[in-house]
Parts: sequence; C-alpha cells; structure tokens
Amino acid sequence: MKKFNNLFRILSRNCNMSSSKCAFKVALIQLHVTDDKNKNIENALKFVRTAKENSADIAILPECFNCPYGTKYFLKYGEEIPNGETCKSLAQCAKKNNIYLVGGSIPELQEKQLYNTCTVWNPLGQMIAKHRKIHLFDIDIPGKITFKESDALSSGNQITIFEIEKFKVGLGICYDVRFPELANIYRKEGCIFIIYPGAFNMTTGPLHWKLLLRARAVDNQLYVAGVSPARNENSDYVAWGHSLLANPLGETEAETEHQETIIYGTVDLKKIEETRQNIPILSQRRTDLYDILYHHL
Amino acid sequence: MKKFNNLFRILSRNCNMSSSKCAFKVALIQLHVTDDKNKNIENALKFVRTAKENSADIAILPECFNCPYGTKYFLKYGEEIPNGETCKSLAQCAKKNNIYLVGGSIPELQEKQLYNTCTVWNPLGQMIAKHRKIHLFDIDIPGKITFKESDALSSGNQITIFEIEKFKVGLGICYDVRFPELANIYRKEGCIFIIYPGAFNMTTGPLHWKLLLRARAVDNQLYVAGVSPARNENSDYVAWGHSLLANPLGETEAETEHQETIIYGTVDLKKIEETRQNIPILSQRRTDLYDILYHHL
Repeated sequence: MKKFNNLFRILSRNCNMSSSKCAFKVALIQLHVTDDKNKNIENALKFVRTAKENSADIAILPECFNCPYGTKYFLKYGEEIPNGETCKSLAQCAKKNNIYLVGGSIPELQEKQLYNTCTVWNPLGQMIAKHRKIHLFDIDIPGKITFKESDALSSGNQITIFEIEKFKVGLGICYDVRFPELANIYRKEGCIFIIYPGAFNMTTGPLHWKLLLRARAVDNQLYVAGVSPARNENSDYVAWGHSLLANPLGETEAETEHQETIIYGTVDLKKIEETRQNIPILSQRRTDLYDILYHHL
Repeated sequence: MKKFNNLFRILSRNCNMSSSKCAFKVALIQLHVTDDKNKNIENALKFVRTAKENSADIAILPECFNCPYGTKYFLKYGEEIPNGETCKSLAQCAKKNNIYLVGGSIPELQEKQLYNTCTVWNPLGQMIAKHRKIHLFDIDIPGKITFKESDALSSGNQITIFEIEKFKVGLGICYDVRFPELANIYRKEGCIFIIYPGAFNMTTGPLHWKLLLRARAVDNQLYVAGVSPARNENSDYVAWGHSLLANPLGETEAETEHQETIIYGTVDLKKIEETRQNIPILSQRRTDLYDILYHHL
C-alpha cells in the first residue's frame, strides 16, 4: 500500500510539472535477423535512427537481434558485456540519437558461461541495466516445437528494473513472460512498464504470445511491450512476430503482423493512474490471505 | 514440486484405472434471472435436469441466480445457508439428478451479515463446499459503471476447494477472478479446475471477462469456467453473459453469447497432464527467487 501511494505521488507530481513528461513514445523494432552479425547490428542502428526521427523516447530491439536463435549459434555469436562490439555499437547509437535504447537480447559470454542477455542504454550512452533471462526456454510439444535453451545457456538470477525519468521499468526476456510472479514483483516495486523482447514460435506464438502480454498488463495495470524478430522462414527457428504494446486495461495499443517494421505506441502515465483509480485491484488485494514473497531488490 | 508430482501420480493412476473417470462433462447454465425468487429457483432446477439428461457430471449456475444483482436486493433475497429455501432446493436437485451441482451464488444472511456465497452439492445432496466472495466488487469507472458491493456485503476470508472423484476444484466468485494470486494458490494446492460464477457488466465484460478467464487457465494449466447470468436489459445491472470454459492451454473450449442457454464442455485430465508435460512452467518456476505465501488450507 505504501509503495502504491508512492507511485501515485510520483505520477501526480511529475504529470503536473510542465518540465516533466507524462507520456513516453515507444518504438517497437521488429527486426529481420540474418546469420550476418554485422549486418544485423547495422540494420538495428538504422531502425533506431528512424525511431528517433519519429520522436520516440525509447527504442526496443527484439530478442536475439544480432544472432539467429538456436543453441548452436550462441557460442559463436556470444560476446562480453559491455566490452563486445554489439554493446559498443548500442552505446554509441543511444548517445548519438539521444534516446533510451533497450537492446533486445544478445548471447552474452562471461567466464565460459553463456546467457541470453538484454542491455539498456540511456541517452548519454551509459549502460543502465543488464537482464539475463531468468527462465530458460525448455519445452517439448511433440511434432511441433522442441527446444532446450539450457543445453547452451545458463540462467540469470536477478530481477531487473531500470529508470526512465524517475519511472521504473521492468525487464523480462521471452519465456520470462510465462511467469506471472515476475510481473507481479515489478508492479509491487512500482514499475509502470514491463518490456519483454521475445521470439515466440509458430506453435506458441498463435497460442499464447498476445494472451500472455495482455494478461500481464491487465493484472498489473501497467504497459507491457513484447518485441519479436520479424518472421524469417529460412531460419531453423521461425519467429511468430506480432510485436505488440498492451495498455493498463489489457487492450492492444499497437500491434503488427510478422514482417520487418517499427510500430509506435505511447506509455501514458495518466492512463495508468486512471485505470488504477477506477478498478482499484492493487489496493483490494487480500494481503491478509496471500502475498508474493521475494528477495527485495 | 512435491505437490505437482502428487497431482501427476493421481492423474496417471486414476486415468489408467477403468473404474475411474479421466474426463468430466461440465454444464455451464447461463440463466435468465428475474425479480421472482421462486421462479428463478424453479428455472435453475429445470436447467439442471436438462444438463443431467445430456449426461453432465457437473452443473454450474451463475452468480446471484435467485436474485437480481444489486446491493438493494441482497437483504430482501438473503437466506441462511444451508437452511434456506434455495439450499433445500439445490440439495434435492443434486440428489434427484445424481449430479454435482455448483450453486452459482446467492445472498447469504448470517447473524445480520450478508455475503455473496456459492454452495456446492454432491450427488448425495450433501453440501461439500461454501465459498464467500473474498474480493468485493467496488469499482468506479465514471460515466460507465459504478458499483460498491461493500455497501451491503461482508467479504469471505476463506480460500475454498472441494473434491470431485478425488480431483480438487477451486472456487471464486466474479471479482475474485481479477486476483491471480487466488488462482495461483488453487494450482499449488493441486486443483485441476477453477469455477467462477460471475456477472461482469457491459463495460468490464467486453474488456476483461474472457481475457481474465483465459489468463487464469494458461498461467495455471488447468480448466477455468466462468458462468454468467443471461443478459437482462430490464435489470438495473445488465450482465455481459458470454459464459465460457477455457482449457489448460488458455483456449476457449466452449463459449456462448448473452442469451439464456446451457453450454457443455469437457474437463479432460489427460489434456492437463499433456500441457504440463509439454510446457513445464510449473516445475520451472524460480522458487529460489519468488513464491506465493499464503495461509495453508
């Protein structure tokens, strides 16, 4: 209850000050990913420039944007964070375009361990967050999709929040979206937005991508973005695409099909405040009966 | 993990025994509710008979099936449980039709307190569960829907599980569905099915009814039923209708529009087992990082 009131105070204070923003324009970049790492990076930078030209405050790249998605590729494409070439390019790009840049994810190599990792860069080109995928994608739907990310990757052990103009944003990568507890924690910590770079596939995409993103939004009354690579039918792993932004009512604010594109949406703090006042589930939770327990951040 | 394995053992054992059922036919009765209590009860009994004639194992009535939905009606229509006339009728009906009967909800009067209460009856006519709505419906969407259930009702303080042929079923009423923690607890306790009698309205219905029911199903990999009154345009409170059964993949298994009807669906234990094996999120939860805390039942 205390945290919730704090958020309200921040929302009200900042939205009434003419110097502070009440809304952020978000660009979801649904990138076509190939097996050419340099070309993937160049393409990403080009799209971030376009996002800035269209006045975006935050640009978001998809999961695994510099590398084909597959366990056999991660070691070859892996690099250190923040010293690898991809991070150097992202840092420069964020600074040059004066934009917040959520770097989808890349395979991170550290001390012989590989991770699926998202970096976030502020408009000064500084890395302000690093999220390693917590829940690895190990599933087996016979005859449809079998994938075992844990064959190649280690999992992250940190819940990751960063700030944009004093507003908190939570990070998850793809399969992390299946775990409502993570989104619940982000909301409890005061987040107004959760970003999931993610590459669902042709089985789980039509079944669950949109449902899960909208569910996280409606249950926590905040914005949720899912940013996918474009569909590449020549890949081993064919991504579903359908990047989308859901609003605090769980409605789809912006959405696309499967091709390479940018879509834009607005994270509107007044909409969050209004939703939370009208349907006050956050204060109506029965914490005398249940609550989520987690290691405080 | 222990509980999860136990469920698997129960599922496997029972489904391999020819004497035990692996699937239950469920009837969702979308009843037209008027201001005539006796007529409402008679109508409910008629539909339960029809459900039995169509081989249903479980019949489910909607929220507030014997009374118009509104704070001004609850005291007038309220009765003691299980000694009131509605409960006596439900008990006889369950026994006569040899069916499990989930009695939607009625206004319960006990020691001058009113509750919104669901009763469950076994085929012997015994009351095997009573759930008082835990989360009261207090919302205010200006110009659209304002309702304050807590003006008239007290809230329940119990999480409610009952058993059908050794399988656990969780209960919630309407607004309870907005709280994912409750469904999470039911899944952790081993439920295979959650039933929400509920009367969403013409604002929150199209926005959230289906999304919330499907979200609870996909996140907990179990069946979820939402059973609404039919839409009565002459009521003070106009219900959305659209009763539905969602399966463990979050797909809509059975669904209707807004008129009085019965729809049927199957709670298939093999489908639950298959879903949980293929996408094993229940064992992949990171309980080293988070878990839900609740008073054990």
